[in-house]
This record gives sequence, structure tokens and C-alpha cells, in this order.
Amino acid sequence: MADVTIWNEYRHEREDDEIAAVYPDGIHATIADALTDGDGRDEAPDHSIRTATLDDPEHGLPADVLEETDVLLWWGHEAHDEVSGAVVDRVQERVLEGMGLIVLHSGHYSKVFKRLMGTTCSLQYREDGGTERLWVVDPGHPIADGLDESIELPRTEMYGEPFDVPEPDRLVFTSWFEGGEVFRSGCCYRRGSGRIFYFRPGHEEYPIYEDDDVRRVLRNAVDWATPTEGAPRTFGERD
Amino acid sequence: MADVTIWNEYRHEREDDEIAAVYPDGIHATIADALTDGDGRDEAPDHSIRTATLDDPEHGLPADVLEETDVLLWWGHEAHDEVSGAVVDRVQERVLEGMGLIVLHSGHYSKVFKRLMGTTCSLQYREDGGTERLWVVDPGHPIADGLDESIELPRTEMYGEPFDVPEPDRLVFTSWFEGGEVFRSGCCYRRGSGRIFYFRPGHEEYPIYEDDDVRRVLRNAVDWATPTEGAPRTFGERD
Amino acid sequence: MADVTIWNEYRHEREDDEIAAVYPDGIHATIADALTDGDGRDEAPDHSIRTATLDDPEHGLPADVLEETDVLLWWGHEAHDEVSGAVVDRVQERVLEGMGLIVLHSGHYSKVFKRLMGTTCSLQYREDGGTERLWVVDPGHPIADGLDESIELPRTEMYGEPFDVPEPDRLVFTSWFEGGEVFRSGCCYRRGSGRIFYFRPGHEEYPIYEDDDVRRVLRNAVDWATPTEGAPRTFGERD
Amino acid sequence: MADVTIWNEYRHEREDDEIAAVYPDGIHATIADALTDGDGRDEAPDHSIRTATLDDPEHGLPADVLEETDVLLWWGHEAHDEVSGAVVDRVQERVLEGMGLIVLHSGHYSKVFKRLMGTTCSLQYREDGGTERLWVVDPGHPIADGLDESIELPRTEMYGEPFDVPEPDRLVFTSWFEGGEVFRSGCCYRRGSGRIFYFRPGHEEYPIYEDDDVRRVLRNAVDWATPTEGAPRTFGERD
Repeated sequence: MADVTIWNEYRHEREDDEIAAVYPDGIHATIADALTDGDGRDEAPDHSIRTATLDDPEHGLPADVLEETDVLLWWGHEAHDEVSGAVVDRVQERVLEGMGLIVLHSGHYSKVFKRLMGTTCSLQYREDGGTERLWVVDPGHPIADGLDESIELPRTEMYGEPFDVPEPDRLVFTSWFEGGEVFRSGCCYRRGSGRIFYFRPGHEEYPIYEDDDVRRVLRNAVDWATPTEGAPRTFGERD
Repeated sequence: MADVTIWNEYRHEREDDEIAAVYPDGIHATIADALTDGDGRDEAPDHSIRTATLDDPEHGLPADVLEETDVLLWWGHEAHDEVSGAVVDRVQERVLEGMGLIVLHSGHYSKVFKRLMGTTCSLQYREDGGTERLWVVDPGHPIADGLDESIELPRTEMYGEPFDVPEPDRLVFTSWFEGGEVFRSGCCYRRGSGRIFYFRPGHEEYPIYEDDDVRRVLRNAVDWATPTEGAPRTFGERD
Repeated sequence: MADVTIWNEYRHEREDDEIAAVYPDGIHATIADALTDGDGRDEAPDHSIRTATLDDPEHGLPADVLEETDVLLWWGHEAHDEVSGAVVDRVQERVLEGMGLIVLHSGHYSKVFKRLMGTTCSLQYREDGGTERLWVVDPGHPIADGLDESIELPRTEMYGEPFDVPEPDRLVFTSWFEGGEVFRSGCCYRRGSGRIFYFRPGHEEYPIYEDDDVRRVLRNAVDWATPTEGAPRTFGERD
Repeated sequence: MADVTIWNEYRHEREDDEIAAVYPDGIHATIADALTDGDGRDEAPDHSIRTATLDDPEHGLPADVLEETDVLLWWGHEAHDEVSGAVVDRVQERVLEGMGLIVLHSGHYSKVFKRLMGTTCSLQYREDGGTERLWVVDPGHPIADGLDESIELPRTEMYGEPFDVPEPDRLVFTSWFEGGEVFRSGCCYRRGSGRIFYFRPGHEEYPIYEDDDVRRVLRNAVDWATPTEGAPRTFGERD
């Protein structure tokens, strides 16, 4: 069982009534609920869950919180620029030490993800409320545990290729969109000792994080991203 | 400029009038034409082209032919089982030595491709004549040179995920299908010193290899798969 | 806790007195001991262990044994050719379904490993009893859990590059040899739903599997290779 | 033939007489010589070579120079911190657009390389003047063209694992060091449309860039890193 911190920008939900209606307590609250949900199939995980938002002091991510975090989830969209460089440095450092990181939806443009990828993380998009079908292209992956061959989301924002990220270590999902596009929507990376998973679903205008399959993926991803012990990383001058 | 051998099963075209109408001289002849086609944009490549078919002696691939081949293209479908183990051994050996291999469409189930991948190379399919759009997911790749952001084929057979192959070294194309599926339709591998490219388009009932973009991909892939010199592979007991 | 089958050729130990002195009950027995060893640091794992050898009926690997096996370890050397194609087919099939496979030392030349890799799996070697130091190049990997920065083995057979295998998905160890060579000595692959780990140490003339660090790696590798559930692999014609 | 820019910090050679004796015109001049050297085997390449140093205005890398550069080589050591963020931004942007980047020796700690990798790029080191042998682990790679199975450098600084970089797309060289360490000394990456090669040899106190094999690697790497055309990268809102 992991110490999980869910970071949410938490602006849309306070600024826009329609979004507030979808996520009345904030996207982070819905994700927290998803991560501790048993879903009738598996037992509810016994994670220790913390939430943090942009407008908290130090964005809710002071050094001691990150130090105690096994897995950090990141949802941001309209205020990426307001995230301080000091917090980005700290998150990067903790990921390289082993903290898992799950980047959600428009978090592809977060400073944290761009820092760890080294690329623009650009993509194509269209807000059209069309259908997305996420195909499991790697059925043996633990993040796909308990899923069917695909996940269907009736109304989403479209993200299309090319997605300017390094070739994933492992591609778990590829999305089909009603409007004619595809997208690598579940991408695994390791940087330093940390596991990173980018997962596309999550537009703020639709109740994506209420979907049972999406919630299962989030739980699986937390399990996958939880650090293992490994060997010491000894750098510096050798005698 | 490369020594290219195009291998075609060459049964459908001789057995079925409708297919014969699409490829009157065999799929291999159309591909040979594509590889030496200048297309008004680049000069016509000056490859030395040879063709070989299943019913030739030794399937047209005796040792000396393979020895002189820089890049082998492979199209097969209904008679994979008739390809002799000796020829499969020889092709594998030459690929590991550096010969490029381009596996087309239903060649995913060829003995040669399965031997080199180590997996079943299974997939889902449906012969529905629907539209396929191949998205370039790796715009910096030489196999995508001169393409637009996607290739559209109005009538194709559908191939769907999961595609049981090792994670590609580099994924160049991902297909969107009108019927709701996706497929990793351009996959690069290296095995030994040889470069391998799997390229999905090519159903025998549609004139896929007449498409200008598909033809450009074939030419690009031959250039990419042509062996470089490298260093010697010295195996055995060391003094 | 996993159902583990340890496969050993079990010829050297019965044919050669000096080797019998190192592994009196066979290499498989020593590995079995390693896998259930608590080592004073972690609790002893509660695996269900089975052993199988070349001269058992069906090499000890009938369909029902493989069906019940989560992780198969493979040690072979002088009699690779005697392993039947039927057993190789079955092992490959089970790996693609999800069974973990740990290939040890001279098992690089086994039919099973060559089938799954698609390459010759050749390398250089010298039986000189020199020192090997295995460096952890991926300290965040679970197979390195609990190790120091390197493992030192005072007397080993040398294996040198080039090692003709596909580029590993993840390289965990690289060996330094006293005589001047290097070798990628811990290589992770996935094929189908199965996890494969090649681990170099294990020459039959030295008590390599008595080494505490090597034993820890074997235990870690069994944990890593144990199948997860994943999603169903649905192949065939779609409606 | 490519437009090549060689960037050198160019401080050691002006500050230290012993280093000046090794590289009297600066490391960049010796590398420029290597890149246009025919070596009796191949014809001398016809690259257009430019050099740039830290103390030039804008470090010698104004926008128009980078715009015209196909491949940039980077050597830096003691003054990484003095490289301006604006130049780092510009180099990153150009690499993602397709410019090749070859990072040499202590350049592993440059801002440019760390930016593109997303990791600390840390390693172990020891200045002991011991022997290094670089083994070709990927004999089929164009960067290994014309080499023997290994390159031996009699006196070098040691770099040891773990090297905190993302798993390379392709590992070309692994070094053996007399003192007992190993290092992944030739690592290929792609970021955006750009090819990146990290090559370890090059300590300023030894005439490493006078070595014929090292010079051959530099020439091969420039050829490998030269951009290909690719497809357009179209980002933004789709209609």
C-alpha cells in the first residue's frame, strides 16, 4: 500500500459552473475516491491518500510531502506557467530517486512532464465531445489488469498524433477517435529510479474519472508506479 | 543503390480473376514498379531489382540470390506453410548478417517474420473494405520522408490490436480504421545486423500498391533497410 | 508466491566428478535451495518449487506442468540439441501466454531462448577462471533490490560482446571481466505476455549458485517474472 | 555532406599549459580536423565546418548559426553553468526540429544534455590515466562502420556506472576500464526529430581526439546524426 499524493490545479472547478457540476469537490477528490474504490472485483486498496492544489502554499508540495510520497498524480491545464521552478525541481529530483509519477490528460504540457521528457510534449487536439476507444495494445501489462480489450468513452476531447514525446519504453494504450485520429494514450517511462505513466483520459468537462475502467487504470497505475527498493545509486569520485 | 529482391507468394493473382484484374502481373511486378518510380518529386532510384515467387525452384531464393540481396521484400498469405524450413533458415541467417527485410501485410504470419520475432504475430482482422488512415507518429523517421501527416486508403482490410509482436524499436505509423480499430502499422526492428520493417498496407483485393504514398513508403523503407558496413561480428573462443 | 519450475539439463553433474563435487544434487537442487532461502534479510519466499531435467519423460515438462508453472528457470549446456521441438513449442506458447522465463548462463544457446529471441544468441567466451564483476546499471530495477552497486564473482568463465540478442527492453547488469571484456549480463525482455530475464552467472565448474548475491538476484527475478493478470488477448476475425 | 558546428568550452586549453600542449588550437580544432580527415580508407568528407566557443558572443551559437547547422558537437567541462539559458533553449528547440547533437565526454553534465535527457546524467569517475577498451556491442550500427571489435585507449579518465540517463534507444559501445569498471560509452537517442549520440572518450589531458578509431567514430556519428526530411510535425487545434 502506497503513500499517494494527488495534485490538481483546481481552477476550472472553482471558475466554471458547468465544470463544477461535473467535479463538485475538484478532480482530485474524484481521483482520490477512485484510488480507494474496490469496484466489486478487487478489495479496496489501502493507500494513504493526500491531495494538493496549485493555490496551496508551495502548491501543496513542500519537501516533506514529496519525501513521504510514493506516487504522485498530476492534473493541470490552464495554469501550468504558475507552477514554480522550485517545485518542478523537487518533483523531478524525487522521481529520479524513485517516486512514481502519473501524468493525466492536459498534464502533458505541465512543466514537470516536459522537464522529465526533454521534448515539447505537443499534440493535436479538438474539443468535439466525440467518442474515444482506448485499445489495449499490451495485454500483458499490469496497468491493463482486469480490463477488456478496449475502453470506450462516449464523450471526450480529441488528442491526435504526432505526440512529441520520447518513444515510450512500453505503450499500453492507443486511442481511436470518432473524428479520424489516433493517439498513444498510455505511455510508460522510467527516468532515474522512478516510473512515469502518461494517461490521456480526463477532460474536465466530462465525468471521465467516474468511468469504472478509467478508475481501474488509475489504481493499476499506482500499483505499477510504486517504487521498489533497487540498489543504491552511488555517484562521485571512486577511490 | 541497392540489390533488391521482391518475394511474392503469387497464388492469388493466378487463382482469382478479380485479384488478377488488380495485379495482372502479380503483386511483385507492381512493387518492382513502385521501387523504381521517380514520382515527379525525387529521381527514380537506380536499384537492381529481382523478383522471386513461391513456385520457383527453392522459392526463387537459393543461397546465391540471398547472398547478393541487400533488401528483401516479402508478401505472402495463403501458402505460408509451403515455404520450406531451409529457405526460412537462410533468410533468417542473411537478415542477422545485415540484409534488410520488409514484411508486407499478411506477411505478418509468414514463417520468416515469426522466426525473427519469436512471437505468434497474431492480430484481429475484418475484410470490410473500410477506410484506413495511417498516421505518422514518428515524423523524424526516414521512412516518413516526404509524406504528409497521414496516408488515407479508401478501401482496405482491417487489422486490429493487439498485435502480438515484440515492442517495436521504433513505431512509424499507427492506423485508424473506420470500423473503430487501431493498429501499429509501421514497425521497425533490428535483429543481428539486419533492419526489419513491417508495413501493414497491401491487401490483394485492392490496388494498394498503386497508391503514391504507399509507394513512397516502400522506396523509403528500402533506403532505410539497406545494410551499412558496421564492425565485424566475432564470435567464438577468445585467446 | 509463485509456482516455479526449475529445468536443468543435469548431465555434467552425473558425468564429471569435479562438477558433481560442486553440485552434488544437481544445479537444480542448489537453485531450488536459493529460491526458498531467506538469507537473513528478507523472509524466505513461500514458492511452490518443482524441478525437471532433460532425461525425465518429456524432459519433465508435460503440458500440465507448464500449465501450472508461473516461472520457469532454464539451465542447459551440452545437450541443447536433445531438447524436443514439441517441448520448445510448448514453452514458447506458455511464455507468450504469460509464464515468466529465466534463462541462465549457457542457456543462451538453448532452443527455447533462440526461439524467443529470433537471433543466434552467439557470444565470445573463454574458460579462464578469472574474476567477473557485475555492475548494476539500472539501480531502480526490482531485480537489483537489495544489492550493492556491484556483485563480484572471483572465478568464472568469461562471456564477451557482441552478444547477438535483440536490444534488451531493460539492461540491469553489465559485467566486467578481469581479462578485458564486457558483457550485458542481465537482460530483460517481454514476449507476448511473458517476462524473460537472461542472467549470465552460472558456470558448472564453480559454485556460482552458492553466492549470496546471485541467489538474491534469482529470487528477485522470480518475483519480477511472475505473471500479472493483464487484459485478454483476443485474436481472430472481428464482427 | 552536412553543415557541422563544433562547440567547445575552450577554457582548459587557454588556462593550463599541459592541456595546451595536447590541444594547442583547442579541442574544437582537433575535432574539426578529424571530421574532414580521410584516413586513407574513405575519402575525406566534404562537410562545411564551423566552430564556436563559450566566450564568443552568444557562445558562438546565435539563432542563424543554429538554423544552418545540421549537426552540433558539444564539448564542455568546467563552465557548464556559464552557458546561458537562452542558448540552451535554442539548442533544444533545434534538436527537436531535427538537428543532430553529439555530446562528448564531460558534456554529459552540460545543460543541453541534461535538458534533453530529463535526468541528472550523473556517473562515477576517477582520473587515473588507466586503459579503456570500448567494445562494439552493436556491430550492425552505422556508427561502428569500419571499426574492429573494440577500440583501445591506453590512457583515459574512468567513467563508471550507474550512468543516470534514460535507457538508450540503441547502445553502440560499452567500455571496460583497467580499474574494474564498465560504462555505456556510446548511447543513441532520438528526441523530437533530432538524433543524439553521447560518446564518452575525450578527456582534455590526453590526445584522445588524435586516435584514428575515435576520429572514425566522430565521422560516422556526424553521418548518422544528419537530419533526414521526415514528415511535417503539425501541432495545434484540428478543424
